[in-house]
Amino acid sequence: KMSLKWLSLLLLLQLTCYFSSGRCGKVLVWPMEYSHWINMKIILEELVTRGHEVTVLKSSAAILVDPNKSPTIKFESFPASVSQEDYENFFQQLLTEWIQGAKHSFWTKITTAQNIFSELSDVSLKICKDAVLNKKLMTKLQESRFDVILADPIIPCAELVAEILNIPLVYSLRISPGYSIEKFSGKLPFPPSYVPVVMSEFNDHMTFTERVNNMLYVVFLDFWFQTFNEKKWNQFYSEALGRPTTIFETMGKADMWLIRNYWDFEFPRPLLPNFEFIGGFHCKPVLWKYEGKKPDTLGPNTRLYKWIPQNDLLGHPQTKAFITHGGANGVYEAIYHGIPMVGLPLFGDQPDNIAHMTAKGAAVRLDLDTMSRTDLVNALKQVINNPFYKENVMRLSTIQHDQPVKPLDRAVFWIEFVMRHKGAKHLRPAAHDLTWYQYHSLDVIGFLLACVATAAFALTRGCLFCCRKLANARKKAKRQ
Amino acid sequence: KMSLKWLSLLLLLQLTCYFSSGRCGKVLVWPMEYSHWINMKIILEELVTRGHEVTVLKSSAAILVDPNKSPTIKFESFPASVSQEDYENFFQQLLTEWIQGAKHSFWTKITTAQNIFSELSDVSLKICKDAVLNKKLMTKLQESRFDVILADPIIPCAELVAEILNIPLVYSLRISPGYSIEKFSGKLPFPPSYVPVVMSEFNDHMTFTERVNNMLYVVFLDFWFQTFNEKKWNQFYSEALGRPTTIFETMGKADMWLIRNYWDFEFPRPLLPNFEFIGGFHCKPVLWKYEGKKPDTLGPNTRLYKWIPQNDLLGHPQTKAFITHGGANGVYEAIYHGIPMVGLPLFGDQPDNIAHMTAKGAAVRLDLDTMSRTDLVNALKQVINNPFYKENVMRLSTIQHDQPVKPLDRAVFWIEFVMRHKGAKHLRPAAHDLTWYQYHSLDVIGFLLACVATAAFALTRGCLFCCRKLANARKKAKRQ
Repeated sequence: KMSLKWLSLLLLLQLTCYFSSGRCGKVLVWPMEYSHWINMKIILEELVTRGHEVTVLKSSAAILVDPNKSPTIKFESFPASVSQEDYENFFQQLLTEWIQGAKHSFWTKITTAQNIFSELSDVSLKICKDAVLNKKLMTKLQESRFDVILADPIIPCAELVAEILNIPLVYSLRISPGYSIEKFSGKLPFPPSYVPVVMSEFNDHMTFTERVNNMLYVVFLDFWFQTFNEKKWNQFYSEALGRPTTIFETMGKADMWLIRNYWDFEFPRPLLPNFEFIGGFHCKPVLWKYEGKKPDTLGPNTRLYKWIPQNDLLGHPQTKAFITHGGANGVYEAIYHGIPMVGLPLFGDQPDNIAHMTAKGAAVRLDLDTMSRTDLVNALKQVINNPFYKENVMRLSTIQHDQPVKPLDRAVFWIEFVMRHKGAKHLRPAAHDLTWYQYHSLDVIGFLLACVATAAFALTRGCLFCCRKLANARKKAKRQ
Repeated sequence: KMSLKWLSLLLLLQLTCYFSSGRCGKVLVWPMEYSHWINMKIILEELVTRGHEVTVLKSSAAILVDPNKSPTIKFESFPASVSQEDYENFFQQLLTEWIQGAKHSFWTKITTAQNIFSELSDVSLKICKDAVLNKKLMTKLQESRFDVILADPIIPCAELVAEILNIPLVYSLRISPGYSIEKFSGKLPFPPSYVPVVMSEFNDHMTFTERVNNMLYVVFLDFWFQTFNEKKWNQFYSEALGRPTTIFETMGKADMWLIRNYWDFEFPRPLLPNFEFIGGFHCKPVLWKYEGKKPDTLGPNTRLYKWIPQNDLLGHPQTKAFITHGGANGVYEAIYHGIPMVGLPLFGDQPDNIAHMTAKGAAVRLDLDTMSRTDLVNALKQVINNPFYKENVMRLSTIQHDQPVKPLDRAVFWIEFVMRHKGAKHLRPAAHDLTWYQYHSLDVIGFLLACVATAAFALTRGCLFCCRKLANARKKAKRQ
């Protein structure tokens, strides 16, 4: 009886998929860790709900990627040359290092970030090799005939697996340092005059000095900063594919970029047809309900819980303000539920996120190291009592809710589109087929300048020649 | 009884509007003529269906803008200083002139287009003045409290009316010569390395020579070509608003740009968050049915009709190919219904449209002046018998149909969004608040170069000074 029930449920899921969103597909996932995984899981669970089969490639070092916590998702495990303990310790150390470095100037921040990303890159490369050089695993994946691979490009490898298995690739990305992945792989333009660079904490209306700094940051990030230890990756990817390639070129094969951002959070800037902004897709309108033992800590109006879903808490009608470290997930939940924020950013994109929210009048920023108790109380009073903050965050909330299609549905639509059409070539800009100097028209400009120079030179020489001839003729005439 | 029926129908419409798409609004329209009007009317009729009140500002010179043919739309008429006959003759002459000019090289085409747009600009300015300086009309419009103004910016004026009435503005645009309006008013970037300029007939994969030409065209169009006689418009707009402004600045106030193009037709290129691509929104899946007197002309398998809806004809299951002049509306109908094309372009965007379709393998292009009967027969045989064309146009058709929201629904959504929120400021890039040299970071680059030059100069002078000092000291030492 039970199995019959399950069978009919499965059949129902299959029907849902067949009728509402095309044929059912097989999705392979290369996961990221921590908040990136928690976020990605929402898309995966939605895909499962619509009848697709989702398989996550899980290394033995994985921390939060846990089959027991996601019973509807399949997992394909492989042994990693890094132990789970080392991997977790590594992240803890990175975090400490990053939080320390993030307290200082842009240049210190960027140097710290460079170290962090360099270390992360090396560990990621190790795990990538563990997967790709595992013949048994790759054969199994090849035989499974997946329709698409979904990944967060901050930890690379998916693009190589996609190339080897010859299947389309969809990225889900929050942001990359210096926008390097979006710029060099996605070919997205970032005009430095009104797009503040990552980690600058500027907004889109910059003073002259800020624009000068922004330009210097852009040049520095473009020419010096390395999100990945590119040489090592380029070499491995070239070896694995048997032809010279680079990590950025391979990443550029992505069919669709699902950016975890939207125009309530982000400042308006250019995009491309294969970039879909799906920020806030993880937010849910669930009203909070918590039933547990009443803890007897702190003041009578402050409660500590080991863990409660932040989204539910923010959705509670009595929630007046949100003290946040400025993680993108949390900020989006606050926008979604219209809760003004007090920001205490720590590292990564957090200072930028809070800078965006203060620029839009939805948050007050404090410095965790220097703030006093009074500062915190005053900031809280400000965002709670001054209607300015509530009005602004409610405006952002309205924008988030007033979209023709909900962000999660758009994310799923484009993943399914890529499965249905085996890619999304019609959205791919021809910029991908140009070298960097062709893309910037440097060869054309050089050629045209050379033409002008040659013409000017010929003209000058011609004039000089004529003048001399004329002078000689006159001299001769005089002599005669 | 009849009136009760109507009342309930009206009530139903109102309810539809209130419940499905926010409150009902009042839409003012500044119309274009000919195919632009036929196209725009589809949006207007959809707005009426959803319960909005649509009022079209109609000059006495209007040609196709006819109240009798659009009973559900309101019309607000005003006397124009141009007679309808003159206006129609003017367009006929323009057309003849343009078709003649379009047969030659890019430079002839562009010179012809410059004359055409200059003449069109002058007539448009006359009619714009007839409306804006008509105090009675403007007072009535002011009192009507419209929620939004909708217009095709190829014939300007709506942006001025929007400023005077202080209401949001939504544009519906196919394309402007040299992308001038999109570029200078919309701040849309057009990288010349992979975005072929209007009238070039290039595709997005250009050879070096084509890229050189494309760059020359861009420079020429940006610095020499004038879509409007800007001086005259700038002066009138400044006078009417009582502050110095330009037509491009005023156009830049548009809240939303509905571009009548999509990525099946267009080559992928950068866009901005307030640009929505709604190409093909006018197409309908109605199957063709025609009942009339059988004409006895030409061969037995060729029929001539005075006029039948082209969309219906293309939707007929027996339609195998479409001989078209390459107008955007017709090309979109062919894409929608998956019919391969034989293109005989005449003028305007038509040669470009056919170039797009040949690049995508959905059409064969012929030259109306030089082609023979055999050429036409061969071209028809080719697109009908070679599966290449059918496959490609079917692929484009699938792309057109496989969107998360239908283009007409998206167009209406954004018009309603702008009405609901009194604009769409969150989608407006900060580029609008920069001068052209700030936008291109020329001041920043200049400043940084000056810094480098000063440093180099100071360093050289310092070195020279030190060297001399050293040399003098040595000389002195020698002397002593």
